[in-house]
Amino acid sequence: MIFFQNDYSEGCHPAVLEALNRTNFDHTSGYGRDPYCEEAAGLIREAFHCEGADVHFLVGGTQTNQTAIAAFLRPWEAAVCTSLGHIAVHETGSIEATGHKVVTCPSEDGLLTPEMVRAAVAAHPDEHMVKPKLCYISDSTEVGTIYSRSQLYALRDVCKELGLYLYLDGARLGSALASKENDIRPEDLSACCDAFYVGGTKNGALFGEALVIVNPALKADFRYGIKQRGGMLAKGRLLGVQFGTLFKGGFEKSVWLEIGRYENELAQKLQDGIVKAGYPLLVHSPTNQLFPIFPDKLVEKLAQDFRFEVQRKMADGKTCIRLVTSWATEESAVDAFLAAI
Amino acid sequence: MIFFQNDYSEGCHPAVLEALNRTNFDHTSGYGRDPYCEEAAGLIREAFHCEGADVHFLVGGTQTNQTAIAAFLRPWEAAVCTSLGHIAVHETGSIEATGHKVVTCPSEDGLLTPEMVRAAVAAHPDEHMVKPKLCYISDSTEVGTIYSRSQLYALRDVCKELGLYLYLDGARLGSALASKENDIRPEDLSACCDAFYVGGTKNGALFGEALVIVNPALKADFRYGIKQRGGMLAKGRLLGVQFGTLFKGGFEKSVWLEIGRYENELAQKLQDGIVKAGYPLLVHSPTNQLFPIFPDKLVEKLAQDFRFEVQRKMADGKTCIRLVTSWATEESAVDAFLAAI
Amino acid sequence: MIFFQNDYSEGCHPAVLEALNRTNFDHTSGYGRDPYCEEAAGLIREAFHCEGADVHFLVGGTQTNQTAIAAFLRPWEAAVCTSLGHIAVHETGSIEATGHKVVTCPSEDGLLTPEMVRAAVAAHPDEHMVKPKLCYISDSTEVGTIYSRSQLYALRDVCKELGLYLYLDGARLGSALASKENDIRPEDLSACCDAFYVGGTKNGALFGEALVIVNPALKADFRYGIKQRGGMLAKGRLLGVQFGTLFKGGFEKSVWLEIGRYENELAQKLQDGIVKAGYPLLVHSPTNQLFPIFPDKLVEKLAQDFRFEVQRKMADGKTCIRLVTSWATEESAVDAFLAAI
Amino acid sequence: MIFFQNDYSEGCHPAVLEALNRTNFDHTSGYGRDPYCEEAAGLIREAFHCEGADVHFLVGGTQTNQTAIAAFLRPWEAAVCTSLGHIAVHETGSIEATGHKVVTCPSEDGLLTPEMVRAAVAAHPDEHMVKPKLCYISDSTEVGTIYSRSQLYALRDVCKELGLYLYLDGARLGSALASKENDIRPEDLSACCDAFYVGGTKNGALFGEALVIVNPALKADFRYGIKQRGGMLAKGRLLGVQFGTLFKGGFEKSVWLEIGRYENELAQKLQDGIVKAGYPLLVHSPTNQLFPIFPDKLVEKLAQDFRFEVQRKMADGKTCIRLVTSWATEESAVDAFLAAI
Repeated sequence: MIFFQNDYSEGCHPAVLEALNRTNFDHTSGYGRDPYCEEAAGLIREAFHCEGADVHFLVGGTQTNQTAIAAFLRPWEAAVCTSLGHIAVHETGSIEATGHKVVTCPSEDGLLTPEMVRAAVAAHPDEHMVKPKLCYISDSTEVGTIYSRSQLYALRDVCKELGLYLYLDGARLGSALASKENDIRPEDLSACCDAFYVGGTKNGALFGEALVIVNPALKADFRYGIKQRGGMLAKGRLLGVQFGTLFKGGFEKSVWLEIGRYENELAQKLQDGIVKAGYPLLVHSPTNQLFPIFPDKLVEKLAQDFRFEVQRKMADGKTCIRLVTSWATEESAVDAFLAAI
Repeated sequence: MIFFQNDYSEGCHPAVLEALNRTNFDHTSGYGRDPYCEEAAGLIREAFHCEGADVHFLVGGTQTNQTAIAAFLRPWEAAVCTSLGHIAVHETGSIEATGHKVVTCPSEDGLLTPEMVRAAVAAHPDEHMVKPKLCYISDSTEVGTIYSRSQLYALRDVCKELGLYLYLDGARLGSALASKENDIRPEDLSACCDAFYVGGTKNGALFGEALVIVNPALKADFRYGIKQRGGMLAKGRLLGVQFGTLFKGGFEKSVWLEIGRYENELAQKLQDGIVKAGYPLLVHSPTNQLFPIFPDKLVEKLAQDFRFEVQRKMADGKTCIRLVTSWATEESAVDAFLAAI
Repeated sequence: MIFFQNDYSEGCHPAVLEALNRTNFDHTSGYGRDPYCEEAAGLIREAFHCEGADVHFLVGGTQTNQTAIAAFLRPWEAAVCTSLGHIAVHETGSIEATGHKVVTCPSEDGLLTPEMVRAAVAAHPDEHMVKPKLCYISDSTEVGTIYSRSQLYALRDVCKELGLYLYLDGARLGSALASKENDIRPEDLSACCDAFYVGGTKNGALFGEALVIVNPALKADFRYGIKQRGGMLAKGRLLGVQFGTLFKGGFEKSVWLEIGRYENELAQKLQDGIVKAGYPLLVHSPTNQLFPIFPDKLVEKLAQDFRFEVQRKMADGKTCIRLVTSWATEESAVDAFLAAI
Repeated sequence: MIFFQNDYSEGCHPAVLEALNRTNFDHTSGYGRDPYCEEAAGLIREAFHCEGADVHFLVGGTQTNQTAIAAFLRPWEAAVCTSLGHIAVHETGSIEATGHKVVTCPSEDGLLTPEMVRAAVAAHPDEHMVKPKLCYISDSTEVGTIYSRSQLYALRDVCKELGLYLYLDGARLGSALASKENDIRPEDLSACCDAFYVGGTKNGALFGEALVIVNPALKADFRYGIKQRGGMLAKGRLLGVQFGTLFKGGFEKSVWLEIGRYENELAQKLQDGIVKAGYPLLVHSPTNQLFPIFPDKLVEKLAQDFRFEVQRKMADGKTCIRLVTSWATEESAVDAFLAAI
């Protein structure tokens, strides 16, 4: 069985595994108060050019989104995102579980636009409705697309104008920034976002996300929120060790970016082959998640040798599936898939 | 610096590390739907003689307590525990964050008694007050003490009589069950508790707790709760790999129990030496957490070579400190400490 | 200034006022434990043919919806309603504030259909998403439309089939049941709904809604929920006195139904006149809320003499406004409006 | 049956009833956006010398406490109060329902002291615990006692020093300020508290509490919170009409203060008589709630003619009961009670 099911189907990248082995018997204080976390936070500040930012390490993406958004908002304030937004669809109402509504804007490509933000704010004019206060975006998005630099700055501008925070879910930020079609620089994230997270789980770590809080108004007492939501890892140094490994050596040469490049390369070879073979895509993806549309029969046949998720049933006997590459995907797997279609 | 600070100051036990290395490049589905988790759940059911129970793996203790208690209770129902209860004191209001009050009963030794439970229920007679519905106990407790078999069954009986759930926090259950003073058998936990968790983080794992839900009425849809509270690990197999390693070979011969025995042995040697040297204890502990009381000056001196937590300032220039042993503590550390006092 | 702004722009119906005066100096126990509430609950059980139901009196609609839905659902369960649903739009995220997502189905006429319910359930297949568990409907709806008897039973059937509760918001149930186009009998509500509320605030009371819980599984401990959400009125008898007045004499002859008939009659005269004058409606309404579309200039002119809400700006220089009649509306007001257009 | 059960056993004071009758058929906008509320808010600002304060009218005390505290605190922040605090004991965990822990300080007389506040803060030093951020006090307290002016200022000082808000529950503030032993002036409340509420329900209104927010940092968007918690009364003017009546004519001559004086006078006559008859008190009360201790047999006999609450069973066959006077209590009732003991 060949896996295109997800970018978290294996353990961790060899470099991370080595570091975990190397440091296993060291003694440190718990809860992220250790030299490894300190070093990793410094590397991330350096990579994203945000010296003054607070960096917190959490275990997973849902937890990070929930902890951050619940800490940033007052009780009646709401998050705004596209109808594909991970917090709106795939996190079991974790934002609502902290008391906040998620306002969604219909979208096919997963990209939030300033027009959507304006419309969402305009539709909530008074105290009988929730108050939109935070825009949630993801890069790459839930369907593999990415923001351009100008789109990101335009979002920043509309958020500033309307008094909203801009928050970016970077679960697959490595693939996004490593994409050949990307023109966002790490420093753009720090310049545009009030907070964002740098994904580890889907980019080579055993687990872990690094939350970067840029806006000083959002920093105070954040560790209380991490602990209260159950996200404070006792052996917090495990997060420091992993992120330290992923980001050492400078952003451009980092293992983290290298993983993004590698998985994108395989994904693009796969996507090109699928298109060349005449199959349509739900959406063009420049990153490591692909959404080809195949006849149902072919999907059934592929499922015998390959593991992947079904995205949705289409009309006319066709099915859109999702293929994901990771640091652990081998080129032979891509070749085998292309041979099979 | 010698660490008696905690039982999570290092990485994981060598056997766990070996297993993580061995399985790192395997491909599996995510979120705990993998053969490792399945196998580990089976081993735990076997060890605790609870074939029909549901076993869920979560990352940490606060998360496990919060997810379980929030899932088990209706909005106005409350948890009852001692005034030392971890959920009452050291989890940043995580139970309250899900909407539930924690009712506390004053205690010095951390052991909840049937009398306390009766009094708590009697003090909440009508709908103007919360409704006590769940007893939270920990074994070993927050001050290292343990329940006897008869105490556990007495709690079960009062809970059944009054219609409360009995929930046991087993963060340090390994040390408790391995204690020479313990007479609780693993099957007693399944017979007495509606749910309990088997601690991994403080007993040799990198992280992880295994929640065992015995009461069928509490099982439905529990995975929704895990996901909603941010506790569903993408690479869930890491938990299965670790617990599979800790519990294979049968309960008596398990690495998990062996770790408990080892850390208890060192702790008892340490406690005996402290008592022999003439220092009092806050409470006699038969497990891996000790609470000796030293003159402030001695504490200051010890702090130069040893790392430990201060439990509390006592009267008369004395301080109670906490010393914890773990699988990684070496006997030479114990000897060094005894030499220093 | 003539008010078509709302059906809560005045105090209470004269019969209610008389009763409040008559009983003002009586002594009773608090919190709804009094003879007036007991009697009123009996009258409502009789009117809706639901002898075994629990009847609770609360102060307002948002409070009733919030208290009921939060009590009925487990943490990850969601309510389903149309995109116009009052809980989705106009209650400031009060359902989310208790931790639950509201899943919305696009609708122009405010009526939830079995197809929408099926689609909402189908779109939430696993624990990575919330679990739809309750359908929220309102009768009359937020745009004045009403359910037919067969539509109501069809909703009941799909809810039973899929394991969802059916909950009806009856803020304007009086106008709905009194409508000439209505064929729902009071007993149909008890037969179809797991719970519903009978509106007082918008139907002649100073304030108050009577929640009827039909499904025995939803009854236990509900008063805890009322108290916890701040909805337990100290002088609870005020609610009993009002609902006793509104429902005495049998359903058909009740003041409550009479108010519905009166406001509908005026509303229909108004709607007929508007249509006759050549103006379109957003939707045909058989109840006391009307949604005519006028040229912006006419709206501006009308606003000088009449008070009403703007529903929404339409294309082409037109505006949809909302006109509402109440027990306090005089026929001369209707005539004046029709003369003005 | 003679009622000493509560100060909300009847409808409203005649002056309030007259006003409700007089204004019943007026037309106004809803939700407290009406001239009556505006006028009443002005009278309260004048009475308490707080021109810049925001005044919001809510229906009941639990609702007011919940809405205010949930709006003022960040998720992990806690309220501090005595062990008798109404929010800690008698509001069904309504504060916890919004996610916040209530930290209690043991007390017999219901008065919070600066020492208690210091101790509570000292006991919560880091992010593993909740963060005390608001002191909740009530005047009169749950056992009828009152704060002195110097006690109130001392609390203000410790709160300022430690960065806590001071919040006062004035459910029975009328009785407190009208007490012969009181030396707090209305302006002291505005000078000391970040927010406080002026009770109507227990002081002559049908229902209603006036929340005064003095601290500008706590004002923003508060109406969202009222609506979200279900506390925004559709016919909000009812609150304005009532508080306008209670406070017109200047503070000293207000009906509100007059009611406090009246009920205190009867209560003190009752308390003096009880003491003279040789019965002990749980605590000396200078307000309208009394806590005499009688032999169980006498309590049984009294219960045949008088309605009152049992406060608690004492040792030695005695019971502490609670007697409450109100604007509706007649002097003959007091005489009858004294005759009966």
